[in-house]
Amino acid sequence: MSRILPPGFSEREFEAALQRFSAVIGKPHVITTAADLESYLDPFAPGNAAAYAAAAVRPASTEQVQAIVRIAQELRIPLWTVSTGKNLAYGGAAPRLKGCVVLDLKRMNHVIEVNEELGYALVEPGVSYFDLYAYIRQQGYKLWIDPPAPGWGSVVGNTLERGFGYTPYGDHSAMQCGMEVVLANGELVRTGMGAMAGSSMWQLYKPGYGASYDGMFMQSNFGIVTKLGIWLMPQPESFLLCHARFRQEADLEMIVDTLRPLRLDGTIQNNAVIEGAVRWAAGISNRERWYEGDGAMPQVAIERMIRQLDIGWWTLRFALYGRKEVVDLNYRIARKALEKIPGADISVKRYASDTVPAVEPSAAGDKGQAGIPGLAVFQMLNWRGGNGAHIDFSPVCPATGRDAMKQYRMVKTRAGEYGFDYYGGFTAGLRHLYHIFAAIFDRGDVHQAEQAGELLRVLVEDAGKQGYAEYRSHLEYMDLVAAQYDFNDHALMRLSERIKDALDPAGILSPGKQGVWPASLRGKKT
Amino acid sequence: MSRILPPGFSEREFEAALQRFSAVIGKPHVITTAADLESYLDPFAPGNAAAYAAAAVRPASTEQVQAIVRIAQELRIPLWTVSTGKNLAYGGAAPRLKGCVVLDLKRMNHVIEVNEELGYALVEPGVSYFDLYAYIRQQGYKLWIDPPAPGWGSVVGNTLERGFGYTPYGDHSAMQCGMEVVLANGELVRTGMGAMAGSSMWQLYKPGYGASYDGMFMQSNFGIVTKLGIWLMPQPESFLLCHARFRQEADLEMIVDTLRPLRLDGTIQNNAVIEGAVRWAAGISNRERWYEGDGAMPQVAIERMIRQLDIGWWTLRFALYGRKEVVDLNYRIARKALEKIPGADISVKRYASDTVPAVEPSAAGDKGQAGIPGLAVFQMLNWRGGNGAHIDFSPVCPATGRDAMKQYRMVKTRAGEYGFDYYGGFTAGLRHLYHIFAAIFDRGDVHQAEQAGELLRVLVEDAGKQGYAEYRSHLEYMDLVAAQYDFNDHALMRLSERIKDALDPAGILSPGKQGVWPASLRGKKT
Repeated sequence: MSRILPPGFSEREFEAALQRFSAVIGKPHVITTAADLESYLDPFAPGNAAAYAAAAVRPASTEQVQAIVRIAQELRIPLWTVSTGKNLAYGGAAPRLKGCVVLDLKRMNHVIEVNEELGYALVEPGVSYFDLYAYIRQQGYKLWIDPPAPGWGSVVGNTLERGFGYTPYGDHSAMQCGMEVVLANGELVRTGMGAMAGSSMWQLYKPGYGASYDGMFMQSNFGIVTKLGIWLMPQPESFLLCHARFRQEADLEMIVDTLRPLRLDGTIQNNAVIEGAVRWAAGISNRERWYEGDGAMPQVAIERMIRQLDIGWWTLRFALYGRKEVVDLNYRIARKALEKIPGADISVKRYASDTVPAVEPSAAGDKGQAGIPGLAVFQMLNWRGGNGAHIDFSPVCPATGRDAMKQYRMVKTRAGEYGFDYYGGFTAGLRHLYHIFAAIFDRGDVHQAEQAGELLRVLVEDAGKQGYAEYRSHLEYMDLVAAQYDFNDHALMRLSERIKDALDPAGILSPGKQGVWPASLRGKKT
Repeated sequence: MSRILPPGFSEREFEAALQRFSAVIGKPHVITTAADLESYLDPFAPGNAAAYAAAAVRPASTEQVQAIVRIAQELRIPLWTVSTGKNLAYGGAAPRLKGCVVLDLKRMNHVIEVNEELGYALVEPGVSYFDLYAYIRQQGYKLWIDPPAPGWGSVVGNTLERGFGYTPYGDHSAMQCGMEVVLANGELVRTGMGAMAGSSMWQLYKPGYGASYDGMFMQSNFGIVTKLGIWLMPQPESFLLCHARFRQEADLEMIVDTLRPLRLDGTIQNNAVIEGAVRWAAGISNRERWYEGDGAMPQVAIERMIRQLDIGWWTLRFALYGRKEVVDLNYRIARKALEKIPGADISVKRYASDTVPAVEPSAAGDKGQAGIPGLAVFQMLNWRGGNGAHIDFSPVCPATGRDAMKQYRMVKTRAGEYGFDYYGGFTAGLRHLYHIFAAIFDRGDVHQAEQAGELLRVLVEDAGKQGYAEYRSHLEYMDLVAAQYDFNDHALMRLSERIKDALDPAGILSPGKQGVWPASLRGKKT
């Protein structure tokens, strides 16, 4: 394979550029060999691998990021920013555009501050949820973190991509407070109260004065976030974990309609999760035990699996946090509501104040609700056997039973056509659900991988026709997903492009991210 | 007084412009006489009145706003956008720049949608809190609104200015979901899921896909918001109002430190308010009863007033919402914590489910916590006698007793030097407090009005030296407040200016708002 170069660069020009990067960050932190660059491929690419990086640079400080950006701007080298973690479902650390230099921030891994009294952390992009959890435990602070499913994820990265977790602080972008950002011209900006040099309120009050830009720097390519504040939940006095199993496939509608008022009135304060049977089964068994034929598991095989494993068609997993008497009361209220669904089977585990969070819930999904980072979610990769991989379809769903049922039927049917099981579930925000479907495939099987990729594309289009769109997507579908946002002939994209042109006229920052391209590449096939 | 004209316009040119506006919206909706333009003066101007409008235009629809903006852009007429309500503490409906045409949106007063199941409203800028409340009552929806102190305020305007109320939905900008915005080129954009034409999720999930711009259109002059979604709280089953009086001036520190954990763990879910003695007394008496000398009320007069009215040095007002048993339990928890403050005197009023919200709490501050809009806050204008007016100083304060005490001492001392009582209090967010001090003056007394204005300026500077800054400000101090945000030589302002230049190159939208000026006026004395 010939060497990958940034668009328009000769080998010699690129070598000179790399030397300039080396002068800033040291040669060992400029990654150029094919072997070393493998970590910047998409390991779970559906069909065709995502574009290749030309090199990677690993700065250790904000000042080094600024210096790199200034060089990149001068030489017109596109940078693709990543932090730490894997991003397995959405394209890994691969750039959207072939020939980008990956700006890898994982060496910037300082927990800058944790404030126990006011409940927040200020961290750099290389800090993982594992890191932050360990730091807080080590310091003995009575604070919980809110990890997303994979604990190796970056706190900054996950928050910027609007990831979510499962405690009452599960909406990560809503819990973000204050950013430091390097702009494309190398200038450093702090948002909110951080825009005041002497302020102690950077992580206390979000908007600051005048326009607030935090949302603009999320899922975007307008700047490089080098520090981010995140609110942390005070350790609750007690904690209760609840599983509610439901017998019928059609129960989904009643589950959602029962859950919504409990979420809205604060009885259940966390991002409760409604998991489909296959997803639950994947945590405790392998697919071959239930079905070895071609295509998606037939309904009879699913029903047999449910019966033999004694699991629900759907399982609702939620938790309660707070003073013991309040938790007990809210549990009785939630239980009473859920028991109205015929066949509901509710079980509960309690954790007293002195064992929180010392006793770690064992099941994977339970750990997340207990604020403990883990990796057990990847058990799913064994579901189908072979070299397991997955790609996710993540539409937002109104928090109504009829919408959830409609999306479920739509996805299950289409997945079946392409030979995939409905491996999915719904995580309950307040007024919306995150509907997450994973197409699990054997990446050693080229046809299966291609089918997974094609299924994803069709699902985005199916959803669009029904007025549903995704909150996040794999690199391959960023343009397609963005295209679903079509009000007034894609007016929002035009706004994004004007801001892109104003803040990054050379177009060096993460070209193509979420469908936003610099002027020079706009409308071209990339 | 000679006629006010937009900068650079002759009488004839302006007449021609007004005729073009008339052609779009009809002559009766183009306001030009000095008498009619009086409603666009700042009625509470501290010292010098704010700049005068050249005219006002009152469109009835988004399409008319677009047409007006296109004309203004073509002719370079600066527009100053206002909606409804009074904005008395912060400059009224007056423009920051003399010669602006006020774009008055109060005729756009449709409640476009209220969704009871999912708890939200979509409204136009002319809808006041009174209007929305009446609409919901009339339809019989079991939803509460969250009004700010003056019920005549615009839901859209207050939310965009990051106003706040007193229920659990008190952080208005955090409860906003989805906007429609007219840009300076007349183009229409919808944010979040509204960027998808066929989506039913515009008011359900905020960020959408890619960069999110809602925060950027708040307290800014980058666009004109013509529709806005706001989340509404489901009517609670029961509701409890609590007043806790405290005996000592120094109790403020313990009150704040007792309240913070109760707010953070969700025992108290609303924006509880800690009111100073003068503010409480102003609701039930006039100042002349306690003091008729020069300058601020002396400490002995305040103490006599407190004794005779049997009020607290500080009074904490909070409320609990939800199922009766949960409310009762949380009340016991809150009461137990507050009783640890020596001399605390706690009283409570309960409202059962069938009387919510039919029974209206009588006291002004209580109504807000019950989601009922009112105007009783303006009782304060009688405090000092004469032609009462006020101007507000609104620093953000960390939610710690030591910071609250420091800000209180700082403001009280400086106010005293200028002859003003400490009329103020703290509204408790989660990790910050909104510290609101009102300088109450007789606008018939030129010296007093000027002193109020001078005091405000000095307070902004005092606060800045201590690392505190304001969340909002009167027109007169927008540049000064913005200047306090000085990190990296005012990097945030440079970012705002770049976005301003990209989105509004002609500089026609609300010049000078929050200190952001178009390129042509930047750095000039305005």
